[in-house]
Amino acid sequence: MSADVAARRGIPDASVARLPVYLQALTSLAERGITNVSSEELAAAAGVSSAKLRKDLSHLGSYGVRGVGYEVDRLAFEISTALGLTQDWPVAIIGMGNLGRALAAYSGFATRGFNVVAVLDHDESIVGTVVADHAVRPMSDLDTLVREDKLAIGVIATPADSAQDVADRLVAAGVRSILNFAPCVLDVPDDVVVRKVDMSTELQILAFHEQRRSGELDLTDEEVAL
Amino acid sequence: MSADVAARRGIPDASVARLPVYLQALTSLAERGITNVSSEELAAAAGVSSAKLRKDLSHLGSYGVRGVGYEVDRLAFEISTALGLTQDWPVAIIGMGNLGRALAAYSGFATRGFNVVAVLDHDESIVGTVVADHAVRPMSDLDTLVREDKLAIGVIATPADSAQDVADRLVAAGVRSILNFAPCVLDVPDDVVVRKVDMSTELQILAFHEQRRSGELDLTDEEVAL
Repeated sequence: MSADVAARRGIPDASVARLPVYLQALTSLAERGITNVSSEELAAAAGVSSAKLRKDLSHLGSYGVRGVGYEVDRLAFEISTALGLTQDWPVAIIGMGNLGRALAAYSGFATRGFNVVAVLDHDESIVGTVVADHAVRPMSDLDTLVREDKLAIGVIATPADSAQDVADRLVAAGVRSILNFAPCVLDVPDDVVVRKVDMSTELQILAFHEQRRSGELDLTDEEVAL
Repeated sequence: MSADVAARRGIPDASVARLPVYLQALTSLAERGITNVSSEELAAAAGVSSAKLRKDLSHLGSYGVRGVGYEVDRLAFEISTALGLTQDWPVAIIGMGNLGRALAAYSGFATRGFNVVAVLDHDESIVGTVVADHAVRPMSDLDTLVREDKLAIGVIATPADSAQDVADRLVAAGVRSILNFAPCVLDVPDDVVVRKVDMSTELQILAFHEQRRSGELDLTDEEVAL
């Protein structure tokens, strides 16, 4: 119930984008056996200010207790509910190259509310082979998957030059949410949501820290030279 | 020069984390032939408020021109410089399973200032085989890579149960920046920066939008029923 309410309330997109980051931080804390966390600690783990964290969580109706903070398990559940992760979302992965195979085998999806119902490829020599316990299906099965398996999200793991064609087929079959791993921009109707994964994003953040470190070293050298 | 200045100034971590998102949005705009962008448009493409965008960019000394906005190419260059992407960062990928192979072949790294100098695996039957034009090297080559190739960033693409061991070896060899694709938490010294990639994060954001869509449909049904 509260999930629907949260979803229908307009949570700002920027807040929605941070919820998975909080959820990941909470999962890490839970893995370490930590049961309570202050907003300052959780904010630091997620890389945001504690004021922003509190504002984001207030959209879910979650408020920490002064001096106690948040219960890790409870907050993780509330965020999961708001994100719609307490139900299983049927997902199909398209493109059985190395990335598609890695995604099909990725254990993180199942534990986060995603059920890989099918893997597909347009290459007839791959169709029928088994990847991570799934027989690879042909692209022509998309309509059936949407109708019978309620396929909600298509994951594109093809090379860039096939991605638009795959997106068109997903849209034609009725899929309205696409996760694009191919390094290209997709052209889709306005009612289709596309998220593009750029695997170099995190490397770029690391590069910034490496550079700052080099900068600090250079500065020290200069100071020594003076 | 300005890069060093920017890096030495304390740009807040949350702003640093958004710079790659702006850079990705700018790259998409440039690919579509767009040369100027308003702060509102760029903010919308990156999923933040325009006030936050302007604040983040002000840390770089970048200010849009009223009524004109930002030059796409110039702002992309300024962000790249601030992130340290105008030099090539030597990267090694460890673990040549499907994900490691996909990352080794990922074209997005090279165009974003990262040079994959080596791919490694602990499995002797894989060492010496060729992945994406690299001969797979043994883990014992890490010291040499740091000394001779100035290896700066290690990418862990192993299963979860090997990831800590690989991290320990990277740290022992002198690597201070680690990108972890394995679904586990790493224990490293304080001066080592670890970024964890959770491939389900973007799926979670899509799930939210799917749920909101379902919620809207349900709401309509209820209203019809009334």
